[in-house]
Amino acid sequence: MAMTHPPEPIAHGGALSEAIAKHGGEPSQWLDLSTGISPFSLPLPELAKNMWRRLPEMAEASRVGEKAMKYYGGSVLPLAVPGTQAAIQLLPFLRPDTGEVAIVSPTYGEYEKSFRRAGIEVDLVSTLDAAAATRAGIVVLANPNNPDGRETMRDDVFGFVRTQRHRLVIVDEAFADLRRDLSMVGAAGMEPNLIVLRSFGKFFGLAGLRLGFVFAEPGLNRILADRIGPWAVSGPALAIADHAFSRMDLVSELRERIDKAHGQTRSALNMAGVSIVGETPLFFCCEVGDGEEVRDALASHQVLVRSFEHSPSHIRIGLVPDDLSAVRLRETLRLVLPRSA
Amino acid sequence: MAMTHPPEPIAHGGALSEAIAKHGGEPSQWLDLSTGISPFSLPLPELAKNMWRRLPEMAEASRVGEKAMKYYGGSVLPLAVPGTQAAIQLLPFLRPDTGEVAIVSPTYGEYEKSFRRAGIEVDLVSTLDAAAATRAGIVVLANPNNPDGRETMRDDVFGFVRTQRHRLVIVDEAFADLRRDLSMVGAAGMEPNLIVLRSFGKFFGLAGLRLGFVFAEPGLNRILADRIGPWAVSGPALAIADHAFSRMDLVSELRERIDKAHGQTRSALNMAGVSIVGETPLFFCCEVGDGEEVRDALASHQVLVRSFEHSPSHIRIGLVPDDLSAVRLRETLRLVLPRSA
Repeated sequence: MAMTHPPEPIAHGGALSEAIAKHGGEPSQWLDLSTGISPFSLPLPELAKNMWRRLPEMAEASRVGEKAMKYYGGSVLPLAVPGTQAAIQLLPFLRPDTGEVAIVSPTYGEYEKSFRRAGIEVDLVSTLDAAAATRAGIVVLANPNNPDGRETMRDDVFGFVRTQRHRLVIVDEAFADLRRDLSMVGAAGMEPNLIVLRSFGKFFGLAGLRLGFVFAEPGLNRILADRIGPWAVSGPALAIADHAFSRMDLVSELRERIDKAHGQTRSALNMAGVSIVGETPLFFCCEVGDGEEVRDALASHQVLVRSFEHSPSHIRIGLVPDDLSAVRLRETLRLVLPRSA
Repeated sequence: MAMTHPPEPIAHGGALSEAIAKHGGEPSQWLDLSTGISPFSLPLPELAKNMWRRLPEMAEASRVGEKAMKYYGGSVLPLAVPGTQAAIQLLPFLRPDTGEVAIVSPTYGEYEKSFRRAGIEVDLVSTLDAAAATRAGIVVLANPNNPDGRETMRDDVFGFVRTQRHRLVIVDEAFADLRRDLSMVGAAGMEPNLIVLRSFGKFFGLAGLRLGFVFAEPGLNRILADRIGPWAVSGPALAIADHAFSRMDLVSELRERIDKAHGQTRSALNMAGVSIVGETPLFFCCEVGDGEEVRDALASHQVLVRSFEHSPSHIRIGLVPDDLSAVRLRETLRLVLPRSA
């Protein structure tokens, strides 16, 4: 893999300070809906002081891995990583001789970046069927997809994995926490050419923790573990995940709050006359004509959403945390959107 | 860089659960001196809930980077990484066409592992002078060194960096927090072929956080930043470092406690008749005949130290946290060490 000149970072959601630098206001005045992270966080446990002091031990990572396996419904022990982003950085090493990767697109931009960095040719395809027609040794699918919410039925993913044994299939299920019906987690490890990535921070509202899990057969996981190195995940992240996976009562509560906020956000969008073209439990993808313009107009009212170069007519809107924010979103959208006849 | 079969992980200090599995006892009964991490931790600030929730923003990482620059005495903004280990994993990408690296040895084992993984030939040399006689495009020096405490004078490092412009010189200063006289941090960024790594967790007693800093000229830092990806460092780690670098009163306090514990540990070793062959402010390297045997004998009394395959007659002993532990260390050493005439 040749060294390439490091490209500029991709603009992501969550850059509130940049928005403040441009549009003013205090952080507390902003309604930040620019990410797909739940606005509700798992109540944090009291952390033993030891968690901060000591290097996290392998035994702790294994114990959390076992709980993650049960929680996500996996068949094999996952590898804990400091955010799925950290795993994405390393995916090219799984098949370094692969000349080509097919990415079902548009999707999370860091996949393309990671494979290009490794000198692997990137084929942006629009469906799994199209991926089957390429020479790609690796296929990437986010399910449900970010940012458009597109879903691929589990049977279709299964069929692809089974019939395309010569390809490594990477399924990013960062937004599948409330969509077990779509998840391939249980098949990872059983199917030797399947890898499933799960994000901890999005559903649990703890993105600052940096934690994710990779489900795959042990050989693939060992390559990633070796590349990522020892003590990659912080002690507090492991302790908080341990807590989360043991408290199904708190998980149910989070789920209910997310469901409610999802309904409130949908109503706000509907009442503002915004056309929803896709969704996951944690965000909506909306058709607004000129995404960048609408994003800027909303930002001038301290409401932050995300626009996309690859989908210039869309914006992505995360969940509002409460009634008041729902009203604010609705009214601000009404204010900035061109009225159609 | 060819894919190589992932090797077995290196045994490191800090594997208390493994020791407990073998020798029994509860964690609270053990005196764990197996790492070079300070036994005293920075008092933690109250963490804003936001730190856990949100993705850490670039602006936050930059702000902490500025404070780290001042604190460590750097001339350029460092890159924050989730532990220096994470940077070590990526060093081979700085000069992927280098066929050979010279590592001043014996030292921290993960350097060799990281370069070998990348298919780079590793030349274990015993001094910088010996490194100058190799064809290595990269030279690694830990200063002071782990585990033997060997020091290389700053002038010598400077001279090497200046006369060996065709080589990239990586200086690991994980144990240099109390040895400013040795540090090359101020020259990193000014000298284009110099990289300095600093560990946050060792001096601040917060290894579980996963935080370190890389000082180098912007081009090199960009390669590492690109490889490590966005949001590599957790929000809480950034917030705690921000706090630490703003509280020189707490830093002085830590320094005093470490100085005192260092004296207590030295006395215990001296009184037990142990021969100290090297030291840093955070650990002692001792000559004990058969290191592995002594380590096991100490472990049977629930005192954990570190032995080394590459230095079989040595053990490394971290700082005792208090008087009682000093007495325990002294008495246990007396019990297990063969009495010399």
